[in-house]
Amino acid sequence: MTHTEKQSSGARSSRVIRFEGFRWAGIPPISYKDDDESWRSVTRHPLIGAADGTPCHVRYFEVEPGGYTTHERHEHQHVVVILRGEGQVRLGEVWLPVRFGDVVFVASNDPHQFRATGDEPFGFVCIVSAERDRPVPL
Amino acid sequence: MTHTEKQSSGARSSRVIRFEGFRWAGIPPISYKDDDESWRSVTRHPLIGAADGTPCHVRYFEVEPGGYTTHERHEHQHVVVILRGEGQVRLGEVWLPVRFGDVVFVASNDPHQFRATGDEPFGFVCIVSAERDRPVPL
Repeated sequence: MTHTEKQSSGARSSRVIRFEGFRWAGIPPISYKDDDESWRSVTRHPLIGAADGTPCHVRYFEVEPGGYTTHERHEHQHVVVILRGEGQVRLGEVWLPVRFGDVVFVASNDPHQFRATGDEPFGFVCIVSAERDRPVPL
Repeated sequence: MTHTEKQSSGARSSRVIRFEGFRWAGIPPISYKDDDESWRSVTRHPLIGAADGTPCHVRYFEVEPGGYTTHERHEHQHVVVILRGEGQVRLGEVWLPVRFGDVVFVASNDPHQFRATGDEPFGFVCIVSAERDRPVPL
C-alpha cells in the first residue's frame, strides 16, 4: 500500500463525498501506478481507503481513450462496477465488452486487464480487501 | 447472513454480470429484509456475496418512490455509491441529498437511513465486509 492511497481529511467519519463530472470533492486523481510500460493513460481516485480503517477499499479508475491497465494477476479478488464509457475486460485470453452497470468479478490469481474502446473515458469502481497482495505483471 | 444472499451459479469464477435496466442477469431482486414496518418498497440485488468467498460483499438496493430503508446502526461500515435517481441519506439527525456518483461512507455504529425523493427509483450499490454484525433498528 502506498501513501498516495490515504485520504487527508474526514477520516473514519460518516460523510457524503460529492461527485461532479466523474471527479469527487477532495479526491484529486493520482497516478494509477509508478510509471512503466505495462499501462497507459489511467488515473486512480481513492474514494475510500486506508485512512478510513475499512476492511474494503473502493477506488475509481479512469482509462482515457486508447488507454489500458496492466495485464496482471494477484491473489486478492476484484469486484468492478462500470460507471462510464465503453471498454473491455480481459479474463484469461478472452476480451469481453463492458459498459455502464456491468459487474466484473475477478477471482483469485486470474489474469486480467481493462482497456478503453470508445471515444470517451472508460471508468469503473474497483472494490478490494484492505489486506491484499501486490499484483504480478504478466 | 441469510441463504438468500447466496448465488447459485458461477461461484468463485471470474465473470461479467450483465446489466440491463438496473437489473443484473441471473440475479433476481429479493426482499430487502423480513417484512416489518421499519422499511418500505426496497429490493435487494446480491451482486457478489457469500457464494463467491470474497471478503467484501457488493449489493445493489433499489428504493421505489416514497420508499425508505430501515433507520439502523451496526458496527460494520458501509460504502455506498449512488447509481440511480434522487434520494437522501440520514446521517445522525441530518438528511443529505444524494444522486448519481455520490459516495456515502457510514462509519461504525452511526445511525443511517436512505430514502427516495424523486419520481423514479433510487438505487445504490452498498459494499460491506463479509464478516459483519446484525443491524440494530432504531
